[in-house]
Amino acid sequence: MGYKVAVAGASGFAGIELVRLLLGHPGFDLVAVTSDSLEGVAVSDACPGFRGVCDLTFLPHDTPELHQCDVVFLAVPHTAALKVAPDLIARGVSVIDLSADFRLKNSAVYERWYGTPHTAPNLLAKAAFGLPELTRAELDKAASRRAGGEAVIVACAGCYPTATALAAAPALALDIVDTHAPIVVDAISGVTGAGRKATERTHFCNANENLEAYGVGSHRHTPEIEQILGVSRVIFSPHLAPLNRGLLSTVTMTLCEKIPLPTSSGLIASYEDFYKDKTCVTVLPVGKQPRTASVVGTNRVHLGAVVEPRTRTIVATGAIDNLCKGAAGQALQCANIIFSLPETMGLPLVALPI
Amino acid sequence: MGYKVAVAGASGFAGIELVRLLLGHPGFDLVAVTSDSLEGVAVSDACPGFRGVCDLTFLPHDTPELHQCDVVFLAVPHTAALKVAPDLIARGVSVIDLSADFRLKNSAVYERWYGTPHTAPNLLAKAAFGLPELTRAELDKAASRRAGGEAVIVACAGCYPTATALAAAPALALDIVDTHAPIVVDAISGVTGAGRKATERTHFCNANENLEAYGVGSHRHTPEIEQILGVSRVIFSPHLAPLNRGLLSTVTMTLCEKIPLPTSSGLIASYEDFYKDKTCVTVLPVGKQPRTASVVGTNRVHLGAVVEPRTRTIVATGAIDNLCKGAAGQALQCANIIFSLPETMGLPLVALPI
Amino acid sequence: MGYKVAVAGASGFAGIELVRLLLGHPGFDLVAVTSDSLEGVAVSDACPGFRGVCDLTFLPHDTPELHQCDVVFLAVPHTAALKVAPDLIARGVSVIDLSADFRLKNSAVYERWYGTPHTAPNLLAKAAFGLPELTRAELDKAASRRAGGEAVIVACAGCYPTATALAAAPALALDIVDTHAPIVVDAISGVTGAGRKATERTHFCNANENLEAYGVGSHRHTPEIEQILGVSRVIFSPHLAPLNRGLLSTVTMTLCEKIPLPTSSGLIASYEDFYKDKTCVTVLPVGKQPRTASVVGTNRVHLGAVVEPRTRTIVATGAIDNLCKGAAGQALQCANIIFSLPETMGLPLVALPI
Amino acid sequence: MGYKVAVAGASGFAGIELVRLLLGHPGFDLVAVTSDSLEGVAVSDACPGFRGVCDLTFLPHDTPELHQCDVVFLAVPHTAALKVAPDLIARGVSVIDLSADFRLKNSAVYERWYGTPHTAPNLLAKAAFGLPELTRAELDKAASRRAGGEAVIVACAGCYPTATALAAAPALALDIVDTHAPIVVDAISGVTGAGRKATERTHFCNANENLEAYGVGSHRHTPEIEQILGVSRVIFSPHLAPLNRGLLSTVTMTLCEKIPLPTSSGLIASYEDFYKDKTCVTVLPVGKQPRTASVVGTNRVHLGAVVEPRTRTIVATGAIDNLCKGAAGQALQCANIIFSLPETMGLPLVALPI
Repeated sequence: MGYKVAVAGASGFAGIELVRLLLGHPGFDLVAVTSDSLEGVAVSDACPGFRGVCDLTFLPHDTPELHQCDVVFLAVPHTAALKVAPDLIARGVSVIDLSADFRLKNSAVYERWYGTPHTAPNLLAKAAFGLPELTRAELDKAASRRAGGEAVIVACAGCYPTATALAAAPALALDIVDTHAPIVVDAISGVTGAGRKATERTHFCNANENLEAYGVGSHRHTPEIEQILGVSRVIFSPHLAPLNRGLLSTVTMTLCEKIPLPTSSGLIASYEDFYKDKTCVTVLPVGKQPRTASVVGTNRVHLGAVVEPRTRTIVATGAIDNLCKGAAGQALQCANIIFSLPETMGLPLVALPI
Repeated sequence: MGYKVAVAGASGFAGIELVRLLLGHPGFDLVAVTSDSLEGVAVSDACPGFRGVCDLTFLPHDTPELHQCDVVFLAVPHTAALKVAPDLIARGVSVIDLSADFRLKNSAVYERWYGTPHTAPNLLAKAAFGLPELTRAELDKAASRRAGGEAVIVACAGCYPTATALAAAPALALDIVDTHAPIVVDAISGVTGAGRKATERTHFCNANENLEAYGVGSHRHTPEIEQILGVSRVIFSPHLAPLNRGLLSTVTMTLCEKIPLPTSSGLIASYEDFYKDKTCVTVLPVGKQPRTASVVGTNRVHLGAVVEPRTRTIVATGAIDNLCKGAAGQALQCANIIFSLPETMGLPLVALPI
Repeated sequence: MGYKVAVAGASGFAGIELVRLLLGHPGFDLVAVTSDSLEGVAVSDACPGFRGVCDLTFLPHDTPELHQCDVVFLAVPHTAALKVAPDLIARGVSVIDLSADFRLKNSAVYERWYGTPHTAPNLLAKAAFGLPELTRAELDKAASRRAGGEAVIVACAGCYPTATALAAAPALALDIVDTHAPIVVDAISGVTGAGRKATERTHFCNANENLEAYGVGSHRHTPEIEQILGVSRVIFSPHLAPLNRGLLSTVTMTLCEKIPLPTSSGLIASYEDFYKDKTCVTVLPVGKQPRTASVVGTNRVHLGAVVEPRTRTIVATGAIDNLCKGAAGQALQCANIIFSLPETMGLPLVALPI
Repeated sequence: MGYKVAVAGASGFAGIELVRLLLGHPGFDLVAVTSDSLEGVAVSDACPGFRGVCDLTFLPHDTPELHQCDVVFLAVPHTAALKVAPDLIARGVSVIDLSADFRLKNSAVYERWYGTPHTAPNLLAKAAFGLPELTRAELDKAASRRAGGEAVIVACAGCYPTATALAAAPALALDIVDTHAPIVVDAISGVTGAGRKATERTHFCNANENLEAYGVGSHRHTPEIEQILGVSRVIFSPHLAPLNRGLLSTVTMTLCEKIPLPTSSGLIASYEDFYKDKTCVTVLPVGKQPRTASVVGTNRVHLGAVVEPRTRTIVATGAIDNLCKGAAGQALQCANIIFSLPETMGLPLVALPI
């Protein structure tokens, strides 16, 4: 018998991916799923691939079933998590939040970028940030508190920040990057990143055979990237491309002026060292670039890094499945840690080969 | 009766696109197409959409038919153009070259990036660079020489340089960009950009549902971008995405330190002014980003520009059809100029709406 | 100065494709476009590819502008055409209807399949059926009536019926098909066929990387196919595949028992003869199958035909662009005929080669 | 410690999918993989998603490693299996053959459709046909022989025959289908079905945004479908559509003339009964059609069935992942049976939800 878990907002793309992962997880029992739009609908009707595998029906968001759980995953939009998390915590239910509501440590920054007040600053102060390869210590502390009987909250990193921070962190740790110069993050996402809502933008015929940038200079993942990396001059331009899953972040950093020029192979050795023992991270050898297809459906990140001596820049690239390592998989990885289960329990790590 | 033209290398993607455009061009008569791999094959067998429209058959590259032409388009790989262009010019046949062989004014730069000697430096010195919106004066001079009876050569800009330079040039012309800082060019191309050759990389199942960077810091379009823009610190990272046609270049430039901060709308006004009377350029209003789908099949470029005050950067974006404005269309635009025809004669300017 | 035309329902996929075609048509002047959902929006905002090319703004459906036109194209849903067509005709405005409202000659059949009464039976009796390659005589009669000062109405064939009927008609004309046996029509359409409305079904992530049948045995194009072909036992199964434009119909017909077995080449010769002088029809040689990509953006149909002696069947295949020859292009072809213009005036006939 | 297994032809699409499945299978130890084209290459270089998961290197086809195995999967082209299977069997190594070489019980039929002599008729006589839901008895007999110490061979069903036969078999078992009338099989496959070889046909830009039929009336899966279903008048038209994995077969059968008309719900009840206890088969309720996306990456088939009373036909539809249930997954399912392991051991049964 595993821990009892529920997914709130289970009909969204991240939520339904969580359902997939939880159905095969030996340490958690999925007992309830909620959805505003699909209340009363069988999960296997909404997702025919679950027929014969999942007999749950979507409940309303305010179902008391959530109160019986050891942990609830919140796969709801921002502000919605702000509303329900405090109550769950108060009832002794831990929360793994996939929304943005508890990510930014400084509530003023939240309010500036999200344009809405942060109504739970006390809880925010307690939230652990969920990007395990970079914040394991925070998560371990939360795990201890939970083991001691406290309900805890984890704010999982967003999809772009995950790929970007994992790609950039080892270079920044080397103290060779000029952090006064702009760090340029150009990223590309598949259309699942635009969410389940049927809009003109997500219509097949608009997204197919098209490339476009969006939210240039104004995307809300910008302050999150800066917070994780401890820098303050990230210029972030996300792009949409015609594929379902997959997110590639290309991070260009300027080398400090006076330092000796590193080599690509030296840099990659540092990356390997940085992520030693991190099961979900694969650092590619010199000359290889990550392919998002290599990580689809998995909780892995593939990383590449190049030193370009002529311009004295580093270009680091990170590929993830935006719904898995970028959302549901990472949330489950965090839950594993919080419940002192093996970190990668129930997490797929091998993609379809083609 | 139009000018007699031929396309050498007409079975490649740029070549066959040229055939499409020339079939509908009122000022040029397409009299010969050549292909090494498809010699003897009817064009309409290689391209069933041309059935009933084109009754030409691919000839070998060395066919004397080329010598009867007023102009030959070279849609052959680099080094191949280097071999045939001098002979054509010597026979009085003008050349519109889509390859890279005559693009870099400095043959030493060519030799460094292409790893092969430049065997026609005299001709290189005479080549006009073909990116009409930025090099009209050069092309007009060549047009005068041709009108005077001289055979001329145009080296058409590459696909990435076209989108990138058109996006960046107006900002650079304002003297507000710090050209000592890296100019970061992250671009995304559809798979036609990888050429007609069937390889593992262009296999549908490898390219589909995948994103990847390639040639990071080493792509040969880098010196071309620097030459056009007159800068020396471009870091260029191209990416491949799963669509046929379409190229989006995102150019991040750092603003000079002491200047007053421009606004996005002010910047866009400068772009509109810069491209006033340029039929093929559309500058989008503030808040809009170019979509590659809006220009597929056309010779247009759509441009967007954003000033990001927090990081003091400009992000300029340019979308083109890599085969049309990025190759065949631009070549035809250059040919129109060289032959003193209306600049956009025979060039499609309206994409399929969906 | 051309005839004055308007498109009602111009924001739908067929409607906006009509706008594209009309913008380039030398015989018609597009003076008004209407849309319920986009009233007041500039066409070039809804469709950025039209920026600089079209300065119209969507008007409401009941705009009096329509009354000043020589002809109005109705690209509205069924029942909506039923409502507006009689009034337009009464005002002397000819109508080219792309909806299903005037296609089925027998109003009882309409009522059975569409589940709604036919409120304009008199007008139905006068409607010419618009599939020019098969119904030219009807259209010519309407053209004469129009030339005589009468407002006329054309009911354009649907997308599936167009591809299916053009593929099957020549075989049926040979009197070798057993019309008591089922005629099996399995067709595949790109997602533009599902319309502009953003729904779960048309969401990129649902349609992409998926194949499915829909409306099996119940699709409303079934009686239309039967009417055009003069048969009564068509079983029609449409399928959705992940592409924008393109429709392929595969028609399997059983040969009569006592007849001598035809050869594929003999059959194809009959097809060529049947469509002699039909500019928009390309019959492919033995062994070739139509590719939808060869006709995208054009008003062409590509046809293939095979005799399979072992099972004594004929498999005929037809490929069209569902939005062009299957909708907007065909409507314009009909309008050309009705207004005694060259049949293919303003109609693209050459697809992008790749 | 599991049984020792190898995959010959492991670099092809079916072969590498087998590697994926075997890496996670608790009952089999993958000890060797072979490939002609990639000999000496690390599997994780050919398939970066396997980095850190698989440390095998491709061996040549004639490696003696195969002789040490309990079973070898042959994912080689037809005729290649014919060459190696007899030797493996003679050495006591069981063979699960994914090629066509041992599928057709009648070697004369093989020779007619494949145009090459069948050089191992004795082994053919012993081969069990691998489509477990329909041939479990054959496979159980082979399992007994293997348990008794004999090396056995299984000829796994092809991809189209699997989806088609699973869709049609329950209807045929009811004795209501007129088997003298043609059974029309129109199927659509993703591009993985066309194999790993990089060709013009599998080039992204040719396959993308295109639909086409191929092998109409002549595809080699035709006699296999007829053999499984015990019928002789199948007309089979496969189609290619732009997706990676997924195969949908639409089977139209004519009802016998004198029988009472079944209902769709009655028919579906018969399907459910026919596949009772078959874990890998999901029969969808009335009104639902299978989506290939629901089964990608899994060994499931989704089935739909409709009775169309007007034309007295049944339309049955079957959706599979052509590489998994249509190839590698089914092979593993057969191996499980042959080695008396649970039938679905190691087989994924839940697709990505989106």
